[in-house]
Amino acid sequence: MNRIQDRALIKDLERIVGREDVLFDPTELLVYECDALTTHKSLPRAVVIVSSTDEVSKTVKLLNSLDIPFLARGAGTGLSGGATALDGSIIIEMSRMNRILRISYEDRLAVVETGLININLTRTVEDDGYFYAPDPSSQTACTIGGNIAENAGGPHCLKYGSTVNHILALRVVLPDGSIVDLGSKGADSVGYDLVGLFVGSEGTFGIATEATLKLQRMPEAIKTMLADFPTTISASRAVSSIIAAGILPSALEMMDKVTINAVEDSVFAAGMPRDAAAVVIIELDGTAVETSVEAERVREICLSEGARSVWIAKNIDEKNKIWAGRKGAFGAMGRIKPDLMVQDGVIPRSKLPEVLDQIYQIAEKYSLKISNVFHAGDGNLHPNISYDGRDTNEVTHVKAACEEIMGLCISVGGSITGEHGVGTDKLDYVKLIFTPEDINLMACIRACFNPKGLSNPRKTIPSLRCRAY
Amino acid sequence: MNRIQDRALIKDLERIVGREDVLFDPTELLVYECDALTTHKSLPRAVVIVSSTDEVSKTVKLLNSLDIPFLARGAGTGLSGGATALDGSIIIEMSRMNRILRISYEDRLAVVETGLININLTRTVEDDGYFYAPDPSSQTACTIGGNIAENAGGPHCLKYGSTVNHILALRVVLPDGSIVDLGSKGADSVGYDLVGLFVGSEGTFGIATEATLKLQRMPEAIKTMLADFPTTISASRAVSSIIAAGILPSALEMMDKVTINAVEDSVFAAGMPRDAAAVVIIELDGTAVETSVEAERVREICLSEGARSVWIAKNIDEKNKIWAGRKGAFGAMGRIKPDLMVQDGVIPRSKLPEVLDQIYQIAEKYSLKISNVFHAGDGNLHPNISYDGRDTNEVTHVKAACEEIMGLCISVGGSITGEHGVGTDKLDYVKLIFTPEDINLMACIRACFNPKGLSNPRKTIPSLRCRAY
Repeated sequence: MNRIQDRALIKDLERIVGREDVLFDPTELLVYECDALTTHKSLPRAVVIVSSTDEVSKTVKLLNSLDIPFLARGAGTGLSGGATALDGSIIIEMSRMNRILRISYEDRLAVVETGLININLTRTVEDDGYFYAPDPSSQTACTIGGNIAENAGGPHCLKYGSTVNHILALRVVLPDGSIVDLGSKGADSVGYDLVGLFVGSEGTFGIATEATLKLQRMPEAIKTMLADFPTTISASRAVSSIIAAGILPSALEMMDKVTINAVEDSVFAAGMPRDAAAVVIIELDGTAVETSVEAERVREICLSEGARSVWIAKNIDEKNKIWAGRKGAFGAMGRIKPDLMVQDGVIPRSKLPEVLDQIYQIAEKYSLKISNVFHAGDGNLHPNISYDGRDTNEVTHVKAACEEIMGLCISVGGSITGEHGVGTDKLDYVKLIFTPEDINLMACIRACFNPKGLSNPRKTIPSLRCRAY
Repeated sequence: MNRIQDRALIKDLERIVGREDVLFDPTELLVYECDALTTHKSLPRAVVIVSSTDEVSKTVKLLNSLDIPFLARGAGTGLSGGATALDGSIIIEMSRMNRILRISYEDRLAVVETGLININLTRTVEDDGYFYAPDPSSQTACTIGGNIAENAGGPHCLKYGSTVNHILALRVVLPDGSIVDLGSKGADSVGYDLVGLFVGSEGTFGIATEATLKLQRMPEAIKTMLADFPTTISASRAVSSIIAAGILPSALEMMDKVTINAVEDSVFAAGMPRDAAAVVIIELDGTAVETSVEAERVREICLSEGARSVWIAKNIDEKNKIWAGRKGAFGAMGRIKPDLMVQDGVIPRSKLPEVLDQIYQIAEKYSLKISNVFHAGDGNLHPNISYDGRDTNEVTHVKAACEEIMGLCISVGGSITGEHGVGTDKLDYVKLIFTPEDINLMACIRACFNPKGLSNPRKTIPSLRCRAY
């Protein structure tokens, strides 16, 4: 499309959202050239800042009529390149749609606009004794809409489940601009589970503009513990033993030595033992009595698996400090090298010791600094590779190491992503775990929602070819 | 198809499964003319008893090549007519595929053939301290495959979630006879959630032959309580108050007076108070300390909402007696009238008192005996209408009452089924809650799996017309 046609398009978009809310100046667009996966960059053709479902619908209808691709973007904290604007896509910027529309404690739900920042829901309801469970590390920035697109997890998803378990209903603008309501406020849905299907579809089925979310009752008591281990193997064994003992912590996280030291060097310093090979963070919630009894059992298990010490947070400040350290880990790694590749894979929990060991070997092979900080309880690894993006040789090594790590996860019966999604980054790996028949089935389902492929093109599944029925 | 063609078909089927395992004699087929929804009857053209995924695949390939419709059938305990053989369908009888293929306590999963009877999985693992959570009332008869088709619930799904929350992976024979593996053993799936989409698709996407199921650790302690209320309104309020107090019972069930008396007149007699307007069964599980503390709080809440007494089972026999009464309720109703329509609807929990009251008014209006026994904790109602199928006038009244009850559920923001599915019974109601656009979207997704509509025809969604893409 040439400049004159673009000018006409901009005018049409401005008619929908107002003059101030269409960005097309290249310097303004630079902010939107990537999400938190900075290795993948692509400038959008324009950015449209929307304020209502109606504006999203009108924008999408216009773009659909012109065959121009588009995608929604929340906070841009995604780690798989899901919010990268490929093929000259137009970004529909959702952050202004951040209202909480309704809260019902009786039915334990909240209806929100999807540009709402995750933490703001919990902040709104916590004084009344409720919270919203999914808590990605980026929860102070990321939006509910992004969480829905990626089926986001977080430390507390071990007990509470990932985003899909917390969405009752969605209002969605389909890729032709029409508005549909999926799901119901009741316990189960009728017919096919379109809400469950939509969650995790990474923007390829359309744009969710409103969501009905489950609220959880705040537990009576929370115990946060930090156990210090001399080896990653003993730490991994402790994780398995806690689960095997029939305890379901609300969170069960592991951080290795490199991570601990990066955190302790940073503003997130939590007083973690710098000489530990790994620390395990265990959080228990429930009644006061129950958590006390379980905490004692967890302490015994950790010590019997070789922990050097087990520390229990004495108050909310100490608890918050541990979590600031854990959630600040990715930020803290900026101290090691200028760039960071946050990998994401899933393995059966029983394979933790051998897989961790092999990841360190891969790091050594490619002379890379890999730190591990992850959701140990559900076998969701985050090997993080610190590197310098200006060093092309190192970038090649990062790519090779990622491929080996993904292959390793698959070889032990695991998978290529636990919670960050496929996006643009993992398209090639998808072919390693799915047959062409699986991929065709997914492409066919995508075509039901997104027949022209305009909604977030070239994401999630490797090709867009429907079976010829 | 005429008799000669049928004889050729039978021969071909016999070549796949053996001569003994193809039933086509009309008297033998009679057993298969309906499932537990006896108001809908239709004779299958033949029944093929399969023993392996390979036999299912070959059978489906043959039928697909001849454009003959088919459906899988487990135990035939479904309550929405999902296993009724419409349009001369051939039934693929799964009950012989009942092996447990693998159990891993370390990864907390079991791989089973889908003809396995639900309770047999728990019986196999309970001595090792594990159980499989979804427990429909029919669990001593129903199969895992049927549970998957209907996304079955059960009393303990309040805490543990319905079937979809317990399926990690599926081996599926698609309607063209090809075999695909959906999902993974890891925590989350990559790409679209095809396992979640398949669960609850009522046989319209193909036939699941193997399933990887989550196992739960048996809780240290279980407390089962029975509270006796003078009015259904006070019982409903107690249910809401228990949840509002932040307690999540593993089960929270209600039985009304008609149900109690039917049970007490039957072999399932549990010593329930015949003069109560309703009893609420509350089960708590967790540590011994926790359940004791919670049981005391539950007792206080029930008494403060007007319970006449609250009884706690003192041992496993007393616990089993309560559950035998609850799960035997549908059977016990055979004493009231020869036929029973087990309805299924969902409402927001907060609407329980007003909806129950209106259901009794509907019963009175049509001179019908309606008993209520249901999963109160998640607002999943089962109003049961006892009637005599030979009385055509009464049958008309049953139909009218069902329609009014469904309309009532929808009008308060609920839905037309909680756990029994749409099947053939609720096709007309689907149009009340979905727009034509929603239905087209579902039909389009069905066409990805089931393009010729041969797999369980005329179930779940009202029409099979794909958008013209």
